[in-house]
Amino acid sequence: MSLLVVGSVALDSVETPFGKVKDALGGSAVYISVAASYFTAPVKVVGVVGGDFPKGHIEFLKERNVDLDGLQIVQGGKTFRWSGKYHYDLNSRDTLLTQLNVFEKFDPVIPEAFQKSTYVCLGNIDPVLQRKVLAQIKKPRLVVGDTMNYWIETKPSELRETLKVLDVLVVNESEARLLTKEPNLIKASKRIIKMGPRVVILKKGEHGALLVTEETIFSAPAYPLENLYDPTGAGDSFAGGFVGWLAKTDDISPENLKRAVIYGSAMASFCVEQFSVDGLRDLSNLKIRDRYHSFVEISRFDER
Amino acid sequence: MSLLVVGSVALDSVETPFGKVKDALGGSAVYISVAASYFTAPVKVVGVVGGDFPKGHIEFLKERNVDLDGLQIVQGGKTFRWSGKYHYDLNSRDTLLTQLNVFEKFDPVIPEAFQKSTYVCLGNIDPVLQRKVLAQIKKPRLVVGDTMNYWIETKPSELRETLKVLDVLVVNESEARLLTKEPNLIKASKRIIKMGPRVVILKKGEHGALLVTEETIFSAPAYPLENLYDPTGAGDSFAGGFVGWLAKTDDISPENLKRAVIYGSAMASFCVEQFSVDGLRDLSNLKIRDRYHSFVEISRFDER
Repeated sequence: MSLLVVGSVALDSVETPFGKVKDALGGSAVYISVAASYFTAPVKVVGVVGGDFPKGHIEFLKERNVDLDGLQIVQGGKTFRWSGKYHYDLNSRDTLLTQLNVFEKFDPVIPEAFQKSTYVCLGNIDPVLQRKVLAQIKKPRLVVGDTMNYWIETKPSELRETLKVLDVLVVNESEARLLTKEPNLIKASKRIIKMGPRVVILKKGEHGALLVTEETIFSAPAYPLENLYDPTGAGDSFAGGFVGWLAKTDDISPENLKRAVIYGSAMASFCVEQFSVDGLRDLSNLKIRDRYHSFVEISRFDER
Repeated sequence: MSLLVVGSVALDSVETPFGKVKDALGGSAVYISVAASYFTAPVKVVGVVGGDFPKGHIEFLKERNVDLDGLQIVQGGKTFRWSGKYHYDLNSRDTLLTQLNVFEKFDPVIPEAFQKSTYVCLGNIDPVLQRKVLAQIKKPRLVVGDTMNYWIETKPSELRETLKVLDVLVVNESEARLLTKEPNLIKASKRIIKMGPRVVILKKGEHGALLVTEETIFSAPAYPLENLYDPTGAGDSFAGGFVGWLAKTDDISPENLKRAVIYGSAMASFCVEQFSVDGLRDLSNLKIRDRYHSFVEISRFDER
């Protein structure tokens, strides 16, 4: 099935206790589409960059079979830049710089050939734009969306409208708590379901992920990584693996949603093993299947 | 197999956003032995209380088949009292009062009939006392120990000596990080294994538990509780369920250690559903098996 991804395309400068990179390829649409590209092709991306966006990045995305017909290139404009520094335990970070540049006036236009996409993944952008994207899609089979504290705090009513049209919301723990003002994660997820999405996925980083629907709760473990270099993009890689698997299989049954959560977790674990998208550059079906099996191994215990 | 439990016996006054109790039954030896009593009997307890310790609590423990021949009752002395208040999300608490009372001079004497215990669970007490207990046990098959930030910070070298004689260390995330100065939980667990214990169990509260040995990593989910009233004793109930299952089955194979982690998690989930030990009062084998199966349900996904 066809997958459409909308979100930011960025140049990230990141420092962690293990090293740093400058103007590296980043942005939610990039991580999502590269992770998804291992499952379904071509992944269609809608985003915006400036004339300064390196050709090498474009080539890499094309090699990954990412369809860039929806990528606006604003000649003379500058690409969105983000810079952050992670603390010693990698669980918290300081944002050092956010230059929206061409992203500030991003007005997502969905090319006609993209409008029949059946799977849609809306990266973390203004909830107003997320709805604007959806209004251009004919009949999506599944819409997955992400958001962040910033939108929860600054555009709560717009976000509420967007939640009504999402099938799956992917958020982290603190976002779920902030959105619902409920500290208990299960209760928080169920409140989000009342707001619209049928499925809530809580990303918990080193603690794995939780899939909650009206009928099901599924707890996915985290891959036990000893060497984690750069958490940037982990959540988007998760979303990409998740929606990529669903688009590939075109099966949104509860059992397949669980598999998708494991594939999402696998892609996130590859992502954080290297800086920028480097952990997602040279994967193979075999490596991904192997990691899926590692998730089986670490979570299995006797059923009796 | 016979199980010996050593730790505190206390009267707890606890306030959470959902209510409060005053001078309720508590203490590590109590939670551990009551949880374990659903698996193996009698559980032998060594501890100390004052003459003010309510007879009703003694009767309850006896009803649960807890052997109190090792419980010293200091007439005229006062029982250890602890008081705490949990914050809104239950993940943090303030200690309002700690009155050691008779516990201050606790000198664990193991009755002769207890000295041949094969399974030993050392609750969170001074690491010097933990070793003193072990010196009185003939040939334990498995020694499980707990500790806390206080001992890690104030008696680091004594704790290091105790770690050398433990088979299993049960700690929470922050304790593991503090003990090893390593933020990565897998690396931290492996460092602890180098200090002595063959098995490290990280209790992660709402995120489940992690079992780490030289060869295995096992990630256990948390039971998805919507109504959590009082987290006091959750870790000790976990330890009790864990060691109780091992003592019952007398099987310390890797596969059975995983089952034990699930039984421990089940007992912790019952514990926090009510105040004090109330959640552990009226359980049955059937209820415990049902909860075990809930853990299977929430963690299963397709192996292929």
